[in-house]
Amino acid sequence: MKALRWYASKDVRYEDAPEPSLCPGMLKIKVTLAGICGTDLKEYTSGPILIPLGKAPLTMGHEFAGTVAEVGKGVKGFKVGDRVSGVGYYYCGDCYVCKKGLYNLCVNQGFTGLLTDGCMAEYFLIPDYACYKLPDNVSDEQGSLVEPLAVALHAIGQARVKPGDTVAVLGDGAIGLCSVLAAKVAGASAVYLIAKHKGRGRLAARMGAAAVIYTSEGDPVKQLQAMTDGIGTNASIECVGRPETPQLAIELTQRGGIAVIVGIFEKPGIIDFSTMTFTERTIVGSSIYIHEGKSAIELMAEKRIDPSPLISSIVPLKDAVKKGFQALTDNKDDNVKVLLRVS
Amino acid sequence: MKALRWYASKDVRYEDAPEPSLCPGMLKIKVTLAGICGTDLKEYTSGPILIPLGKAPLTMGHEFAGTVAEVGKGVKGFKVGDRVSGVGYYYCGDCYVCKKGLYNLCVNQGFTGLLTDGCMAEYFLIPDYACYKLPDNVSDEQGSLVEPLAVALHAIGQARVKPGDTVAVLGDGAIGLCSVLAAKVAGASAVYLIAKHKGRGRLAARMGAAAVIYTSEGDPVKQLQAMTDGIGTNASIECVGRPETPQLAIELTQRGGIAVIVGIFEKPGIIDFSTMTFTERTIVGSSIYIHEGKSAIELMAEKRIDPSPLISSIVPLKDAVKKGFQALTDNKDDNVKVLLRVS
Repeated sequence: MKALRWYASKDVRYEDAPEPSLCPGMLKIKVTLAGICGTDLKEYTSGPILIPLGKAPLTMGHEFAGTVAEVGKGVKGFKVGDRVSGVGYYYCGDCYVCKKGLYNLCVNQGFTGLLTDGCMAEYFLIPDYACYKLPDNVSDEQGSLVEPLAVALHAIGQARVKPGDTVAVLGDGAIGLCSVLAAKVAGASAVYLIAKHKGRGRLAARMGAAAVIYTSEGDPVKQLQAMTDGIGTNASIECVGRPETPQLAIELTQRGGIAVIVGIFEKPGIIDFSTMTFTERTIVGSSIYIHEGKSAIELMAEKRIDPSPLISSIVPLKDAVKKGFQALTDNKDDNVKVLLRVS
Repeated sequence: MKALRWYASKDVRYEDAPEPSLCPGMLKIKVTLAGICGTDLKEYTSGPILIPLGKAPLTMGHEFAGTVAEVGKGVKGFKVGDRVSGVGYYYCGDCYVCKKGLYNLCVNQGFTGLLTDGCMAEYFLIPDYACYKLPDNVSDEQGSLVEPLAVALHAIGQARVKPGDTVAVLGDGAIGLCSVLAAKVAGASAVYLIAKHKGRGRLAARMGAAAVIYTSEGDPVKQLQAMTDGIGTNASIECVGRPETPQLAIELTQRGGIAVIVGIFEKPGIIDFSTMTFTERTIVGSSIYIHEGKSAIELMAEKRIDPSPLISSIVPLKDAVKKGFQALTDNKDDNVKVLLRVS
C-alpha cells in the first residue's frame, strides 16, 4: 500500500509500505481523509520531538476519517464498512492512572503516528476504544477533525469553564481555533484569541471569537485588560509551547484564574511565581483526551459545533509534502488544516 | 509604648513608638505574645521584600495572642478583656474578588506588620473580621500560632487533599511543619516532609510525618518514589520559595497531582512544562487564608490539631533581635517558632 513515512526532519516520503496485519482488539481502517496536525508539522520541520529515536521509517498521522476494513478478534460494536473516525491514544488499562479512568495519563501510553504507524496510509490499525462510528449527518471532513476537537474539549474541561465565563486562547493553530469553538460550546460569554497571523485571526472572528488580539500590536495582556474591565479572563488556554507563553497565559487571567497548558514544549519556561501565589492562579496541564472524541462527534451531529471552516485545502496523499507540510510551513496565514485525500 | 520597629535589613529596633488611635470597625489589642514569622525573618535578613519602600519605621508582626483593650465604633461581638487571636489581612470587600468571597485575593489588600503597624508592640489595631475570640481550652501560646496554622489549612484546601491521600511537604519552616499537621487533619494517610535541618525533621516526625526526606541525602524525588510505589504523592506543598523548588514540588507528585505554591519568591522559577502537560499536573498558588483562622481555633479547641511543639522559645520583646531574629538566622536546627512575650 502507499503510505507517507517520516525518516527525519524534512525527510518525509510517499512510498510503498507493508499493509498492517490485524491484531485482537483492533480495527483495520481504510483511510478516506487524514489531517496534518501541528505535532506532525513539528516532526517534519524539526523532529524527532515525540517520535522516539530509531523509529524511522514511521507512517505519520493520527487524525482521520475512514471505513472499517477488518474487525479484530474480540471487538464488538463495529462491522466492515462502518464509517468511522477516532483518536490517537493507546492505553494499558492496568496502571494506577488507568485504574482511576485517567487513560490520557497512562504510564504505558502509545500514540498512533508517533509511536506506532499512523493513518497517512491506505490502511492502519486502531484499538477499538479509540474508534467511533460517524453518524450520517457528520461528514468525512468533519470526522477528520474529531481528534483536534477532542484535544480542545478536554482543555476546556481542564479550565473548568462555566457558562458566562471569559476565556483567552493563546495560539492561532488548529488547536487554538478548536479551543475557541470548545469554549463557546461550554458557554463562555466571550472568547479572545491571541494570534500571530491575520488570516487565522479573521477565521477565528468568523468562528465566534469576541475579539482577536494580535501580538504584533503591543502587549497582549494590556490589550486584553482593556477589553475586560482591567481584570483579565477566568481562564486561558495556552496552545503554543514557547518558553514565554505560560507566563503570558497566567497574566491573561484574572485573580483566581486558570491557565491550561496544551502546547508541546521543547525548552523549559520561566515563571514569575509572585504572579501566582498572591493571586492564587492555577497552571494545569492538559493531555489529549479521555472520552472527548465521542463528545466531539455528538456535538457535531447536534450542529452545536462545526470545525469545518478550519479546513484550508484537501490535497492528494502523494502531494502531502509539497502541498501539505511545506505549504503549512511557508504560509500560515492561508493554511490552517490541510487534509490528505487517501481514498 | 514599646514596639519592635523595622528600619532596614539587619536594623530592627526595640524602642518607644506612639500608641495607635482606634478607628471604626477596628479593635485595639493589648498584645500578650507575638510570633516571629518566616516573612518577618526575610525582612530582617534581606528586606525590604514585602514591606513597601518608604514605610520605615514600621512595627513588625502579624501573629499574636492578646486581649481586647478597646472596641471600635460599629464592632459587634467583642468586649474589653476578651482573650483573642487573629490573622493579618485587611480587605476592601468591594473589588471583584472580594465580591466572590475571595478576600485573600483582594485587589486592595493590606497586611498587618508589613503594610501597617503590627503586633510586636504593647498595642496594635486589627479589623474586627480578622480577630477571633479564644476559647478557655486554647492557650495564649496556641493562639499565637493561629495565623501560620491558617496559612497551612488554606494550602491544604488548595491541594484538595482527601482522606487517604498522600502529601509531600517541601520546607521545614513553621509553615511546612503546620502543613504536616493540616494534611493529617484533612485525612492524609501519609505526609512526607522534605527537610534541610535534622532538628526540624525530628520535630516533624514527632508531629506525625510518616517519613522525613533530607535533601542532603540525595535526590528527594527518588527518595520519595521509593516510599510511594514509584508514583509520588497526590499533592505537594511548596513552602520554600527558591527558583528550583516549584519544579521539585511538581516532580514529587504523581500523574494528575497538585503542587501548591505557598513560598514567597524573590526570583523567577524554571519549569519543565513537559513534566506537566502529558501528566496533567497542576501548580496552584495559595495566598494566606479566608476563614481558616477560625477553623484553626476550632480544631485546636477540639484537640484535633496542636502546633505547640513548634514553639522553640519564648523571649521578652526587648530581646527580640538577639534571641529571636538572630537566633532563628544562626541556628535553624534548634529554632522553629520563637514567641515574643509582650505583656
